[in-house]
Amino acid sequence: MAQDRTSRRIVILGGGFAGVETAIALEKGMSRHERETTEIVLVSENNYLVFQPLLPEVISGTLETLHCIAPIRRLTRWTKLYTRRIERIDLKARQVQLAPGYLPKPLTLNYDHLVIALGTQLNFDLVPGSREHALPFKYLEDALRLRNRIVQALEEADNEPDPAEKQRLLTFLVAGGGFSGVECLAELNDFVQAAVHAYRNIRPEEIRCVLVQSGERILPELDAGLASYAQAILERRGIEIHLNTRMKAVSADAVVIQAKTGGEPQQIPTRTVVTTVPAAPHPLISQLECPQERGRITVDEHLRVTDCDGLWSLGDCAAVPQKDGITSPPTAQHAVRQAKTCAKNILNSLRGKPLKPFLFTGLGKLASLGQRAAVAEVMGIKLRGFLAWLAWRTIYLSKFPGWSGKMRVAIDWTADILLPRDITQLRIRRDDAVHREHFHTGEIIFDAGDFGDKLYVVVRGDVEILKGAAIIATLGEREVFGEMALVSDHGRSATVRAKTDVDVVTVSRSAFQQLVNYLPGVSPAIEEIIQKHGATLPEL
Amino acid sequence: MAQDRTSRRIVILGGGFAGVETAIALEKGMSRHERETTEIVLVSENNYLVFQPLLPEVISGTLETLHCIAPIRRLTRWTKLYTRRIERIDLKARQVQLAPGYLPKPLTLNYDHLVIALGTQLNFDLVPGSREHALPFKYLEDALRLRNRIVQALEEADNEPDPAEKQRLLTFLVAGGGFSGVECLAELNDFVQAAVHAYRNIRPEEIRCVLVQSGERILPELDAGLASYAQAILERRGIEIHLNTRMKAVSADAVVIQAKTGGEPQQIPTRTVVTTVPAAPHPLISQLECPQERGRITVDEHLRVTDCDGLWSLGDCAAVPQKDGITSPPTAQHAVRQAKTCAKNILNSLRGKPLKPFLFTGLGKLASLGQRAAVAEVMGIKLRGFLAWLAWRTIYLSKFPGWSGKMRVAIDWTADILLPRDITQLRIRRDDAVHREHFHTGEIIFDAGDFGDKLYVVVRGDVEILKGAAIIATLGEREVFGEMALVSDHGRSATVRAKTDVDVVTVSRSAFQQLVNYLPGVSPAIEEIIQKHGATLPEL
Repeated sequence: MAQDRTSRRIVILGGGFAGVETAIALEKGMSRHERETTEIVLVSENNYLVFQPLLPEVISGTLETLHCIAPIRRLTRWTKLYTRRIERIDLKARQVQLAPGYLPKPLTLNYDHLVIALGTQLNFDLVPGSREHALPFKYLEDALRLRNRIVQALEEADNEPDPAEKQRLLTFLVAGGGFSGVECLAELNDFVQAAVHAYRNIRPEEIRCVLVQSGERILPELDAGLASYAQAILERRGIEIHLNTRMKAVSADAVVIQAKTGGEPQQIPTRTVVTTVPAAPHPLISQLECPQERGRITVDEHLRVTDCDGLWSLGDCAAVPQKDGITSPPTAQHAVRQAKTCAKNILNSLRGKPLKPFLFTGLGKLASLGQRAAVAEVMGIKLRGFLAWLAWRTIYLSKFPGWSGKMRVAIDWTADILLPRDITQLRIRRDDAVHREHFHTGEIIFDAGDFGDKLYVVVRGDVEILKGAAIIATLGEREVFGEMALVSDHGRSATVRAKTDVDVVTVSRSAFQQLVNYLPGVSPAIEEIIQKHGATLPEL
Repeated sequence: MAQDRTSRRIVILGGGFAGVETAIALEKGMSRHERETTEIVLVSENNYLVFQPLLPEVISGTLETLHCIAPIRRLTRWTKLYTRRIERIDLKARQVQLAPGYLPKPLTLNYDHLVIALGTQLNFDLVPGSREHALPFKYLEDALRLRNRIVQALEEADNEPDPAEKQRLLTFLVAGGGFSGVECLAELNDFVQAAVHAYRNIRPEEIRCVLVQSGERILPELDAGLASYAQAILERRGIEIHLNTRMKAVSADAVVIQAKTGGEPQQIPTRTVVTTVPAAPHPLISQLECPQERGRITVDEHLRVTDCDGLWSLGDCAAVPQKDGITSPPTAQHAVRQAKTCAKNILNSLRGKPLKPFLFTGLGKLASLGQRAAVAEVMGIKLRGFLAWLAWRTIYLSKFPGWSGKMRVAIDWTADILLPRDITQLRIRRDDAVHREHFHTGEIIFDAGDFGDKLYVVVRGDVEILKGAAIIATLGEREVFGEMALVSDHGRSATVRAKTDVDVVTVSRSAFQQLVNYLPGVSPAIEEIIQKHGATLPEL
C-alpha cells in the first residue's frame, strides 16, 4: 500500500458525524511520525458539522441559527479540509475529482485510502411534486428555510380576507412519523403557537398541524408504549396524526393523502409541507462499482469494502453488520462509534496489523417532543415526560463537540426561558429564474386578472384554457402559455387549469426579459407563439 | 380630509427607522376613539427593523445574525403590517399597489394620508461591474452574505497553491470611507484576523484589507481631529487606506482604482469587494410626480410635501430642512425625531389643529472602530478610544428597541468576551441561473481546460478567442460563446479574453439544460451556433 512512498494520503468524503469523527480519530491515533508522513484530507460541502439532534430547535428559535453546528476546522487539527462538491469518484485510478471553487478549475486528489461517509439524500422521486413543493428537513439551510416559510405564512394569513386561503396558510404538514418528522413537527407546532400571539388576526385554534405517517404508529424506532405516550402528548396539543396513510402528491397549495387500505384520496390545503422520508442513496454512490445492498455500500465488520483495496465506508451510506446480526441503524451514535473503528483499522492496515471488528450495538434512543417533554430508552430504561427531556438535554449537551459550542447551546437554552420567541423572517431571496412546478388534476394554475409573474412550458400533462366556465383550448407537452401577461404588463386575460396532473417549467418575469433580449432564438420563437395564440386564442 | 368617513387610513411605506417610528408615534398619539376610526398600515419588505448601527457586528459574529433586528410586530400594537414589495404609488388616485404574496394577486390600498419613508438604495450605475461583483452593505442579508464570502475566501486560500491567487483571495476591499465603510472594514478586519488562526496555511500578515475613499479624509461626517485619530488606529492594524481615490471598475477578480488627481489606474486583485457608496433614490421615488431635490422628496419644516394633499415624507428619502439651515443628514437619530414630528402633524391635521415644525439638529455622532475603540462627538464633547467605545455601546444598547432585543444584544456582547469567533459559513445557495458579469479589458474570461460551468452572451464589448497565444476570432455584441463545453462535457477547448471592457449575460449549466429542453427556439438556435462555430472555430 504505497508504504515505500514518503507521503500517504487518506481521503474522507463527507462532513457529517461519520466523516468528521473518522478524521478526529485518525489524528488521535497517529504517532508523530505517522502524522508527518500521512495526509488526512476531508471533503465536505459545508465547513461545519451539523449536530442533527438539535436541528429542530433552530425552527423554533430555541437555539440560534448557527449554534447547532460546529466548525470542522476547530474540531480537527491536521486534517486538510476542502469545502467543495465532489464531481467523481474513480476507484480504478484511485482518484477523487472535486468541483471548481472560485476558479473554474476542478481538483483531482489521489488517495491511498478512501473513506466514503456521504450519508443519504431525500428521495423526491416517489411523490409527484415533492421535489418542487415539499421542504426537506436535513441540513441547516432547510431548518432556516422552513422557519422563514412559517413566518411568511403567518404574515400573509394575518392580512388574508378569504377564510379558505387563510386556513390553507395556517396549515402545516409534515410527512414522516419517525424521529426526524416527530421532532420537527413538535418544534414547528411550539414555534407557531408561541409566535401567533404577535399576529392580531390569527387565533391559536386556527393553526392546523398535521403529521402523515405510513406506518401503523409513530416513532417505529421506539418501544410501542413510549410511542403511544408520545402520540397522546402530541394529540393533546392539537396535532392531527394520520397513521397508515401515504402522501401521494404535493402542489403549491395542497397535499393529497391516501389511506394505505385504499379509499378515496383526500386533499389537505396547505402551503407549507415538510418531508423527512424516505432516504435515497447519494448519487455518487449509486454510480460506484462496488457491492451494495438497497443503495448502501456493503462493508464487512471491519468497515472495509470487499474486493476494493483501501476502500472503507461507514455512517448512513454503508450497510454495517452488527454482532447482534442486524444492520447498524442510521444514527449519530452509531456513526461516531463506526468512525472510531474505521480510523483504528485504517491505521492498523497501514501498520500491517490485524483489524478490529465493529462491536457497538447502541446505547439508547431519544426523541424530544418540545415543551419540556420527551421519550427515551437509555440502556434498557424507559423514560418519558420531563425526566426524559432532562436526559435528552443533558446527553446532547455533553455530546456537543467543543466547549465553546456547549457554552453557546447552554446560553441559548437559558435565554429561551427568559425571552419571547423571535419571529423575524430572514428572507433568503432565491432567484427563481428557472423553476419546476407540479399541479394536481383540476387545480387552477392562474386566474384571469392575476398578476403575470411567469411564463409556463408544459413538461408533462395537459392544461385547459378557460374563458369564464367555457374551455377554449387545451395545451399539451412543450406548449407555452402565460407569455402575453409578461409582454403586455396587463394581468392574465384567461384562466388556466390542470386537465391532468401537470409538470411545468416556469421562467420568471425578470429572467424571461433577459433571455428574450439575449439568448439567441428565444425572441422570434416567443413572437411566433404570441402571434399564433393571438389568432387562435385571443383571450389568453 | 375624509373626516366624514367612519374609517380613515394612514399608509406608511418603508420599514426602516423612519417608517416604523412613525407608526409607533401615531399609535401613541391617538386617542381611543381615533384608534377605532383610523387604520395605520405599514408596508415593509421585511417583517423586522434593522438596527443599522449594529449591522457591522454581524460580520464579525460579535452579534448573532438575528440580534441586530427587531420584529416590527413586537414594536407596534395596532398597525397592520404588509410584508410585500410596493409595485406602484398613484398620487392622483390616492392608491398604493402592492406586489402579489403567495397568490398571484396584487393588492390595492387606498389612503387618506401617505407617508413615504423608503430610504435610499445603493447606486451601482456609476462603477462598471459593481452591480455584478461588489457586495452592498445595507441590509441584514448583505452582512450575512459578506460574512459567508469572507469564510469562503479563507477556506479556498488555505488550500491554494498559487501564491498570486492566494493573495487575491486574502485581499478584502471596501469602497467608501464614511461611517458605514469604516465600521464595516473595521469589523471585517477584526473578524478575519481572529478567524485566521483556524486556518493552518494562512499567516495573519498575509491578510490585506483596503479602504478606498474619494474624499481627502475618512469619516468626513466627523471632526478632522477625530477622523485622523481613527485613520491612525486603522493603519496601525495594517489596514491600507487610499484617500482621494476612486473605484473605477470591479470584476470577479480585481478592482481598478485611480487617484482623483489623475495618474495611471491601478489594479488591486481581490475576490471580495464591498461598496457602501453612493446612495441613489429609490426607483419608486424617481417615478413620483412631486417636488424633489437631488433625488430626495422636498418637504417643508412640517414634513409635508408641498401641493400634495395628505402626502408626507421623511428619513433618508426626504430633503428635510432644519432650523440651522442645513438639510437633515441621513442618520437614524434624525429619522426617529422626524417620525415623531410627522406623526404629530398627521394627527394634528386630522384634528384640524396647526402643525409643528421639525426642530431637532442632532445629538452627536459615533463611529465604532472595533477592538474596543471608537470615535464620538456627543453634545459637543469629543471622545476617542475606549471611552468613546463605551459610550457607543451604552448609547446603542439603550436605543435598541424592546427589552428582549436589548437582552439579546447584552448576552451576545458578554458571550463575545468568553467565546472564540465563530467561523461557520452558512451557505445561501443562490440559483445563479441567469446572471450578468463584467470583465476589464485584457481579463481572461476562461482558460482552455477549465470546467465548463456556463454559457456566455456578449451584451457590450468584444472578446477574443485564443488558441495558445494566437487570436483565432473576435466576437461582439449578442454573440454566444462557451456553449460547446456545456454540450460535450469536456473542458473548455480555447481561451477567451476581454478585448475591451465587456458585459456578458451568463446562463448556468443546469438552467441551460432546462432551457434548451423546454424553452421554444433555444435548441435550434444553439444547434446553429454550434455548427457555425464548428465550421469556423473548431477550437472553441
